[in-house]
Amino acid sequence: MEALTISGNYTDFYELTMGQAYFMSGNKDTQACFDYFFRKMPFGGGYVVFAGLRDVLDILTDFRFTDEDIRFLEDQGLSKDFLGYLGNFRFRGAIYASREGDIIFPTRPVIRVEGNIIETQIVETLILNILNYESLVATKASRMRQVAGGSILSEFGLRRAQGFGGIQASRAAIIGGFNSTSNVKGALLNGIKASGTMAHSYIQSHDDELTAFRNYANAHPDNSILLVDTYDTLGSGIPNAIKVARELEDKGRKLVAIRLDSGDLAYLAKKSRKMLDEAGLYDVKIVASNQLDEYLIKSLKEQKAPIDIFGVGTSLVTGDPDAALDGVYKLSLSGGEPRLKISENVSKITLPGRKQVSRLITAEDTFYGGDVVTLDENDDPDVMHHPFDPLKSLHISHLKKEPLLTKVMEKGKKISEDETPSEIYNYSKQRLTLLPDEFKRFDNPHVYKIGISENLKQLKSTLMEKYRSKE
Amino acid sequence: MEALTISGNYTDFYELTMGQAYFMSGNKDTQACFDYFFRKMPFGGGYVVFAGLRDVLDILTDFRFTDEDIRFLEDQGLSKDFLGYLGNFRFRGAIYASREGDIIFPTRPVIRVEGNIIETQIVETLILNILNYESLVATKASRMRQVAGGSILSEFGLRRAQGFGGIQASRAAIIGGFNSTSNVKGALLNGIKASGTMAHSYIQSHDDELTAFRNYANAHPDNSILLVDTYDTLGSGIPNAIKVARELEDKGRKLVAIRLDSGDLAYLAKKSRKMLDEAGLYDVKIVASNQLDEYLIKSLKEQKAPIDIFGVGTSLVTGDPDAALDGVYKLSLSGGEPRLKISENVSKITLPGRKQVSRLITAEDTFYGGDVVTLDENDDPDVMHHPFDPLKSLHISHLKKEPLLTKVMEKGKKISEDETPSEIYNYSKQRLTLLPDEFKRFDNPHVYKIGISENLKQLKSTLMEKYRSKE
Repeated sequence: MEALTISGNYTDFYELTMGQAYFMSGNKDTQACFDYFFRKMPFGGGYVVFAGLRDVLDILTDFRFTDEDIRFLEDQGLSKDFLGYLGNFRFRGAIYASREGDIIFPTRPVIRVEGNIIETQIVETLILNILNYESLVATKASRMRQVAGGSILSEFGLRRAQGFGGIQASRAAIIGGFNSTSNVKGALLNGIKASGTMAHSYIQSHDDELTAFRNYANAHPDNSILLVDTYDTLGSGIPNAIKVARELEDKGRKLVAIRLDSGDLAYLAKKSRKMLDEAGLYDVKIVASNQLDEYLIKSLKEQKAPIDIFGVGTSLVTGDPDAALDGVYKLSLSGGEPRLKISENVSKITLPGRKQVSRLITAEDTFYGGDVVTLDENDDPDVMHHPFDPLKSLHISHLKKEPLLTKVMEKGKKISEDETPSEIYNYSKQRLTLLPDEFKRFDNPHVYKIGISENLKQLKSTLMEKYRSKE
Repeated sequence: MEALTISGNYTDFYELTMGQAYFMSGNKDTQACFDYFFRKMPFGGGYVVFAGLRDVLDILTDFRFTDEDIRFLEDQGLSKDFLGYLGNFRFRGAIYASREGDIIFPTRPVIRVEGNIIETQIVETLILNILNYESLVATKASRMRQVAGGSILSEFGLRRAQGFGGIQASRAAIIGGFNSTSNVKGALLNGIKASGTMAHSYIQSHDDELTAFRNYANAHPDNSILLVDTYDTLGSGIPNAIKVARELEDKGRKLVAIRLDSGDLAYLAKKSRKMLDEAGLYDVKIVASNQLDEYLIKSLKEQKAPIDIFGVGTSLVTGDPDAALDGVYKLSLSGGEPRLKISENVSKITLPGRKQVSRLITAEDTFYGGDVVTLDENDDPDVMHHPFDPLKSLHISHLKKEPLLTKVMEKGKKISEDETPSEIYNYSKQRLTLLPDEFKRFDNPHVYKIGISENLKQLKSTLMEKYRSKE
């Protein structure tokens, strides 16, 4: 368990049993196209930040079945012929994707995967696993970034993260707008600063708080953050921190910050700020942590709590209260034929065919508040229709269209440029600036419109008729 | 990103900044003891299933800082001397633990870690990350096992799991009582069967359902489960499955099962069972999936839905609605001195000293419904006190005591025997049988009592007095 290798068996078994069925029925070269999209907004919010694409592309680049994988699959009863095929399996398909960091909305394709039916099917689980989780956390982080103003946001979640997923949480948090992480491996993998203070146990292990602070400051003269709430924040923690700050000043050094981890953070931050300022320690920052989420950060900001750095753990890395983005991966084309999944629930009927998605842009170059899904690149509609309510449509000829899906992988090779999570955040920030505020508010945000072109609507109707006539 | 190595940097940075402070103040050999415990029952339930211990022990056995880890830590400003120490770091401490699979309760130590202050501190994040998540999922799985009766439970969650944590979810699900997983890597690592059926996309990629079923059955003549709800479960899915089952019979083979993944599962399972039985297909099983949790499984069982296999994804692997067990890791001893963490909230004051925990056993050899925390192995109290309500105590002299914490790691070497997740489940099942039903019900379960010995109570009082007198 020391190393977790993301090889071919990082998948649901049914991807492989279906693969064997395609293989044995002579359909292994049938060309197919799948769409990844989600249906329900997490957190009752108005947008999702797309994250996880680079991890998907990196894993797919090297994706193969190890000898151990193949032996295990043989024990599971897969056929020798198909295992021979899997032994040489590489993903050689194409991927068209929204840019990582862009804001995305329900029901429209976020990535499109093209290739033979076996390779496009096998990668389903991996794509869902990574994109669903990273997008969930990036979105949660973005909501906190929205209300945190100029404050620094630091991810503290590894201890409460769902196992090894904690590593991906750090990356997604940065994409959503966090500045640092306590998770050293996460910092290393993403090229950002690791942030660290001290635990209560550190203070307790000393006979008194002042000695604990002094020892720490001595070991970290340029990078000390002192946890002041172990015994009595205002009675001993802050006064002791002020003493140590003065001792550092005598050596030409500066205390970086104090940290509050319990109690009424607004009250304690104000009192602490006052005490620090009265001691002339205007530059000593205040870090606050303890069960924070976007609502508490917003409230602390509204109360003008002088908190410079928010440390956020559980609610961020678990995407509380949603825990999972409901992303799905649906077949839209196979063997040259557009496909749709019918359902008694009209909102679950999928969109058939090879599709593009374009963002509607106003004359002022801001987002209008809608994306239109078209059938291919030559489909340039003047009207978009509601995806399943036949009575709703909208004229869009006065709006510009920005195509969103671009090719990022070709014949299994990544052709997009790698960006760091911080660069991806910069793009995300720029996109969010273009989105009107009413889509960003927490309470009942305005609903972003997703429409489909006349051509796509007709294709969908034709296919639905065809299925109905078979019943 | 192809392989995730769980090395020294899989930790919070503060574990290392504290380590440097201990190192530089000459305290690196100070002996310490930490307790892992949790405070709040997840799911409003009456017990937690302890899981993750073996993963912790395996990782600690090989735990070290790689050259890459050390280089990164140098960039983060740690001192050369301390980095030299980390370069040779191995965990050489001792661990005393409850047996994996046992049921555990809030506020009492679940594992105790002993060693020098640096090594015991550094492993905090890793221990919390793994035990919190695996115990959460094992507990959720156990609740489903409780209501599933003789039905098979299969974990289908990888696509909605929080990233790489999906691998650990499979293991924890088995410990809680699941029988199989769709996650091939999870099955491989835990030595169990991978289970797989087919996706709707498989049916859609064929021009008709019957051809899709036939191709699949041809590729898996001894292991076919047919998904019947793509078009019309009772109108085409079941009739086509019956046709294919007969064709298999003609070849001396048998259809294994059909799968329902939408609609009213109770209604469809009953109707499907009737149609299959009327066709003489009594052995063809029914698999049901679609947003299941323990409440839905209970309801389906109460409605006598003839479902043989439940496939459970999101709610299981994300531990919905709790998402995280609130486990903590607290210092109880350092430099020979017992330590406690005080708090304005009395329920958050920790228990000082090196402690044992014993389960109270009735004359009938069942669980009485309480554990007593004692100060060491010679502390054998006749009375146990409420951990923070001074007015509550209970005579326990008529009860037997079973010590729960045993040494599983010594000088960094694992000394406990490895058990497979299925073996751990067997132990868990046996323990749950001894727990009276009122602790197992979903609604307002009876509260399991945790008490402390007189000696521990006095030590706690003495230390609290000592801290108060300092203020």
